[in-house]
Amino acid sequence: MKKTNFLIKTAETDNVAIVTSIEGIQEGSMLEDALISKEFIPMGHKIALNELPKNSPIIRYGQIIGYAAQHIQPGEWVHEGKMSLPRPPELKDIPFSSKLTAETPPLEGYTFQGYRNPDGSVGTKNVLGISTSVQCVAGLTQYVVKKIKEELLPSYPNVDDVVALNHTYGCGVAIDAPAAMVPIKTIQNIAANPNFGGEVMVIGLGCEKLRPERIMEPHPKKQPEKSSILYMQDPAFQGFQQMVDASLELAKQHLQRLNERKRETCPASELVVGMQCGGSDAFSGLTANPAAGFAADLIVRAGGRVMFSEVTEVRDAIHLLVPRASDASVAQALIDEMKWYDDYLLHGEADRSANTTPGNKKGGLSTIVEKALGSIAKSGTSPIVDVLSPGEKIRKKGLSFAATPAGDFVCGTLQLAAGMNVHLFMTGRGTPYGLSMVPVIKISSNTSLSQRWFDLIDLDAGQIASGDKTVEEMGWELFHLILEVASGRKKVAADVLGIHNDLVLFNPGPLT
Amino acid sequence: MKKTNFLIKTAETDNVAIVTSIEGIQEGSMLEDALISKEFIPMGHKIALNELPKNSPIIRYGQIIGYAAQHIQPGEWVHEGKMSLPRPPELKDIPFSSKLTAETPPLEGYTFQGYRNPDGSVGTKNVLGISTSVQCVAGLTQYVVKKIKEELLPSYPNVDDVVALNHTYGCGVAIDAPAAMVPIKTIQNIAANPNFGGEVMVIGLGCEKLRPERIMEPHPKKQPEKSSILYMQDPAFQGFQQMVDASLELAKQHLQRLNERKRETCPASELVVGMQCGGSDAFSGLTANPAAGFAADLIVRAGGRVMFSEVTEVRDAIHLLVPRASDASVAQALIDEMKWYDDYLLHGEADRSANTTPGNKKGGLSTIVEKALGSIAKSGTSPIVDVLSPGEKIRKKGLSFAATPAGDFVCGTLQLAAGMNVHLFMTGRGTPYGLSMVPVIKISSNTSLSQRWFDLIDLDAGQIASGDKTVEEMGWELFHLILEVASGRKKVAADVLGIHNDLVLFNPGPLT
Repeated sequence: MKKTNFLIKTAETDNVAIVTSIEGIQEGSMLEDALISKEFIPMGHKIALNELPKNSPIIRYGQIIGYAAQHIQPGEWVHEGKMSLPRPPELKDIPFSSKLTAETPPLEGYTFQGYRNPDGSVGTKNVLGISTSVQCVAGLTQYVVKKIKEELLPSYPNVDDVVALNHTYGCGVAIDAPAAMVPIKTIQNIAANPNFGGEVMVIGLGCEKLRPERIMEPHPKKQPEKSSILYMQDPAFQGFQQMVDASLELAKQHLQRLNERKRETCPASELVVGMQCGGSDAFSGLTANPAAGFAADLIVRAGGRVMFSEVTEVRDAIHLLVPRASDASVAQALIDEMKWYDDYLLHGEADRSANTTPGNKKGGLSTIVEKALGSIAKSGTSPIVDVLSPGEKIRKKGLSFAATPAGDFVCGTLQLAAGMNVHLFMTGRGTPYGLSMVPVIKISSNTSLSQRWFDLIDLDAGQIASGDKTVEEMGWELFHLILEVASGRKKVAADVLGIHNDLVLFNPGPLT
Repeated sequence: MKKTNFLIKTAETDNVAIVTSIEGIQEGSMLEDALISKEFIPMGHKIALNELPKNSPIIRYGQIIGYAAQHIQPGEWVHEGKMSLPRPPELKDIPFSSKLTAETPPLEGYTFQGYRNPDGSVGTKNVLGISTSVQCVAGLTQYVVKKIKEELLPSYPNVDDVVALNHTYGCGVAIDAPAAMVPIKTIQNIAANPNFGGEVMVIGLGCEKLRPERIMEPHPKKQPEKSSILYMQDPAFQGFQQMVDASLELAKQHLQRLNERKRETCPASELVVGMQCGGSDAFSGLTANPAAGFAADLIVRAGGRVMFSEVTEVRDAIHLLVPRASDASVAQALIDEMKWYDDYLLHGEADRSANTTPGNKKGGLSTIVEKALGSIAKSGTSPIVDVLSPGEKIRKKGLSFAATPAGDFVCGTLQLAAGMNVHLFMTGRGTPYGLSMVPVIKISSNTSLSQRWFDLIDLDAGQIASGDKTVEEMGWELFHLILEVASGRKKVAADVLGIHNDLVLFNPGPLT
């Protein structure tokens, strides 16, 4: 990475660079190599380093992020309006020839204080999860959660929290449609997230399509006794108050068992880290995502599990990911997930270009190609050992690609289902994202944001852009922060403020 | 309706009847016309009145609800396992020849105490609505709503409530896909619901695809000044607390204006009643829905607006609705909405038979045809004067069909967007459904439920099945209850308990 006071260029062949100064660059500024800015260019945006004839490639990260839609002079602002979008890599043209990086030495001796579960997984929080089979019961669940927090939780000091796993699936949906397995698997696997310690209870209605028993089906060992499911329509209940009382009674049994969980020293190999970014800017691919990628490599070296996601944000960089697949079947699975999503978008008369947001563009990300190249930086350099379809549980140690939409809440919900116990969230524009089930470490791509949102951001990766830290230093810092957070010694910003978002299921199937 | 102590037969030509006794009918019971039950038949289920040869039609409501899948003897239980589903009415074969009922005399002199709005609409509650452009802000919105309730609301005694209009749309979606207009229109029109008095404020993030300003676009008169929108990413905010403070400051301005609203006497013609059913059973079409249909006719006669919905629950009865269209264009619009939904389901590899739930079947509703025939009873006998596409605002006085999915929360959310100020919800199996924006009157189809759920049900239409009340008497009772609730003199069960469900948007477009 070549850096002057004002510009960052990522690869030697790049013909654009990124403006780093908060104030932007004024027209007529003298820059490196006798370059003079032809106009004002805001922070995070691109400046042309060479002359770019019409239709010539615009190169960042050493990759084509678009074509010049007009003749561009050196020193001009290269923004969305001056660029055309390249076609995405043709999936059938991507050959699989493994180009794995040399094996890195294992990383040993790093530990955190976690909650060991009977099934071998390790939690980073101790939470009573109340799963639901249908939104009809949300009123009761919310009522009950409030009461448990006020009346019961103080008596169970080892339990961190109680969380309603409300969602909008379960009825009014085509439950036998092929795509229904995505939300169903998601609900089932969220109930098995390590932070719930196998003690999820279920509140159901009675007449809904998603049977409450089904939520526990794939987890025979954790399957609660029949009595761990409460049906509002149970003829035994005379009125709402009796449903509330029975819910509290049921909660007590689970709280008692959860209260016996104790943190113990666990190797870093028990980490399951989900990574995503939201509200990205042009710095994301230079600072926060590379730092996360470095930390991801450390976790993989320590024997842990890491996943990255967001199909539309890797689609344009898929030719760079396929060669990192650990074998041909993983490579094929990667391509299959891209293909599924291409078709899904096509049916909705959209394509991956629908991904970029006004904020991305304002932050300097002109095209989805540029966004994708920055996005995959978070995957580090490790081999991709497995691909998860939406809703699936993570299987292997190492780096997995969990195929999800890129929307923050849908992606987070699917990574919860995959079993993450720590969540990394990289942001440039700033989002107050938080989950109550799993700690979310929020990493800002620029210092301006982390200063302004001092109580919402956990780590400032903008220090890389200012030259105060290297990617490696920042990556190590993040790795240590992950261990602190996983141990419960450090509370993340969202948990301090108590601001959390709801689950959002991915339901590609129809409503009825 | 012919009724014995144990059975209800709806039309003269019916060859099945419904068991009304809570205990069901024991094997060998002597019934009317020398009929003897051949087996135990539960409440709500069907008994064969005649011999039904294999493949012969099974008739209820004077309509074919299925075909005998085997030879059925008189006195046998006619359940799902013994029936096959007829094909839905062919849309292209439904001719439009208006068969409107004779005009009924206008109903005059009925009033309620409502809140008149500058745009001419009338509210039944006085609520501060906080709309949101994206789920990213939900954490702040929830935090702020709690604070407003605790710290501000007591100073504004005329304001009933403050409600966060959180949803899962706004980003991570293909915002320019053709189907995106459904959720966008829904969010826009909810903000214009009469219960918010044109005083909705908006919390946005800043980088999202759904621009906060767009929420107010279609309502130029109500468009709040730019200052009524708060962006979390506003560079002026240093940290979360400043965002909270600014939200409270903004809320105060709206609360002051809302606090000046006063109830005044309004004619019943200002009612906008949304009707739906959820958790239906075989009684729904005999008791609760016909009573609602009678009340709907009264509201139409009084000059008010009523809408019914749920495409998959009218699809099989569409040949009975088309002749009720007020003109050929309304008839065509009805057919077009059916066609759109047929295609939508087909793409998801489902059809309208995916609608019926385990609870419906347990409650005696064997097929979607039987369910649909009971469902449309709520539309009464008035002409259908208009058809709304999902997310549209109601336009005309009289009875409209608002095309929506049948899922309770999606349908309710779309009826809120259509502008309802009172919601009727008919249930047989029982659901605790409630909305915080508009009062929901819950009507049980059977007395067993309303006795058991004494604090969750507002009206017992089961009294029709027991013969204690006629449909007409129950319909009038409901009409008077609607006026009481609309006037704020009577609180509905869900509001007494404070249990409410979240909005659920219908987004037929893809996520990115």
